[in-house]
Amino acid sequence: MSAQPGSAEAGVRFSIPVRVYYQDTDAGGVVFHAQYLAFMERARSEFLNARGIDLASWSEAHGVLIVVHELTARYLRPARLNEMLTVTAAVAHIGRASLGYAQRVERAGELLVDARIDLAIVSRATMKPSRLPDDLKRVLG
Amino acid sequence: MSAQPGSAEAGVRFSIPVRVYYQDTDAGGVVFHAQYLAFMERARSEFLNARGIDLASWSEAHGVLIVVHELTARYLRPARLNEMLTVTAAVAHIGRASLGYAQRVERAGELLVDARIDLAIVSRATMKPSRLPDDLKRVLG
Amino acid sequence: MSAQPGSAEAGVRFSIPVRVYYQDTDAGGVVFHAQYLAFMERARSEFLNARGIDLASWSEAHGVLIVVHELTARYLRPARLNEMLTVTAAVAHIGRASLGYAQRVERAGELLVDARIDLAIVSRATMKPSRLPDDLKRVLG
Amino acid sequence: MSAQPGSAEAGVRFSIPVRVYYQDTDAGGVVFHAQYLAFMERARSEFLNARGIDLASWSEAHGVLIVVHELTARYLRPARLNEMLTVTAAVAHIGRASLGYAQRVERAGELLVDARIDLAIVSRATMKPSRLPDDLKRVLG
Repeated sequence: MSAQPGSAEAGVRFSIPVRVYYQDTDAGGVVFHAQYLAFMERARSEFLNARGIDLASWSEAHGVLIVVHELTARYLRPARLNEMLTVTAAVAHIGRASLGYAQRVERAGELLVDARIDLAIVSRATMKPSRLPDDLKRVLG
Repeated sequence: MSAQPGSAEAGVRFSIPVRVYYQDTDAGGVVFHAQYLAFMERARSEFLNARGIDLASWSEAHGVLIVVHELTARYLRPARLNEMLTVTAAVAHIGRASLGYAQRVERAGELLVDARIDLAIVSRATMKPSRLPDDLKRVLG
Repeated sequence: MSAQPGSAEAGVRFSIPVRVYYQDTDAGGVVFHAQYLAFMERARSEFLNARGIDLASWSEAHGVLIVVHELTARYLRPARLNEMLTVTAAVAHIGRASLGYAQRVERAGELLVDARIDLAIVSRATMKPSRLPDDLKRVLG
Repeated sequence: MSAQPGSAEAGVRFSIPVRVYYQDTDAGGVVFHAQYLAFMERARSEFLNARGIDLASWSEAHGVLIVVHELTARYLRPARLNEMLTVTAAVAHIGRASLGYAQRVERAGELLVDARIDLAIVSRATMKPSRLPDDLKRVLG
């Protein structure tokens, strides 16, 4: 896992608009660094929704959770209050029990944050690795 | 407890859709109670954006902040992961240095959370009460 | 608005120190209003921990959740980055399926936020009201 | 920046206890992944407080902000509601206009999350790189 955020952006790609509210900013006047990772989670969830997978019922039906296993993020420029951002998720890796996304936060085409998010499929009961369900695999391809 | 959140809903009314993500939920499986108040802040900000007031530049230009002075919220039903909610803001009060909203969080027409949010206009420098700027007053009417 | 947060402070009272970090503040330079409610949740949890009730195992064992049913908060003065606050929880009401706290956020004896938080005991399975378990009732007295 | 989280733990090391509250967890029943990064920010802030640097006044006095430039985190095991964690910050790098920490989240000696956080010193006015102030450099040594 060589942690080059955003380098492998072949494959399926999806983006959502995200507005910056007071709740996302900190006393430095910019978006709090961990909040960009929350924005990225929204993009991953909407990517699945757009492909017919409702994470809530899907997770229950399969008895699994999709959890973050490793992430690398580079922060290039800050976002500020009330700006409109575009948050992108591109499938970068599909494994037996794992899944990786290259993600970006952009403002009017300018790259602000670049990340690589690697996720693991785990059993809800045991938190041990579990096979990537076929229905999920299919929509990622 | 006679605060009657949401009772005075005459006047201007605005709503936004809000999706529930993992980041909004807690280990009880439902949206964390303080997060509904964050959803409501999004609706108030978008209400102003829709009327041409960008809170970031407006707040700088006038040297004021709009801060929450008092709030009452009633939680009737919980929202869950991946649900689509509608968050409404209706102007309920316009004062000399204050502003009140009746707000609701709904799911398919069902009321989940009902709130009354009273805000004060304060000077950024001193945090003392400041007159409601005319441009804001105009768009609230 | 007659809800009078914090008026009924007889009974058991508990407090914790809370530091303000960047993550708690917003671009206004002060603590984001909903975050004080999160601080208050910490005080309620530590109050129970101090009395031997671990919310996680207790909630599982009884099959119930303690959820916020209604809250009123008054914001008097803002807290800022890196300040040390004291957050207090005082039992204000014990009902058949409910529980109320008067809570305060203070800085060096100065009141910043005053709140009344009313909670309901609900079944984890149905989210319907459930009797206040005796072990909890005992420690609240 | 070879992104081996937690590998370079020579130098000054500091830790704080962190309790997991409902506000930190998500509907998966575990701590939301971005929240561990917020826990780590708390440890970095308390590290500076313990060395006499109040980030709020220090940042104003020098006209700079300390912002996250790059981070890598590995999530090994999840933390759950009401657990007591230990969050560690060890200085891993001191540059001309930068600063790196190796950080860990542990539960009873067991490693849960391992991270490398690289920070940049930037001007508050321009957000451009700025020299690491001497007083900060001194306490990091």
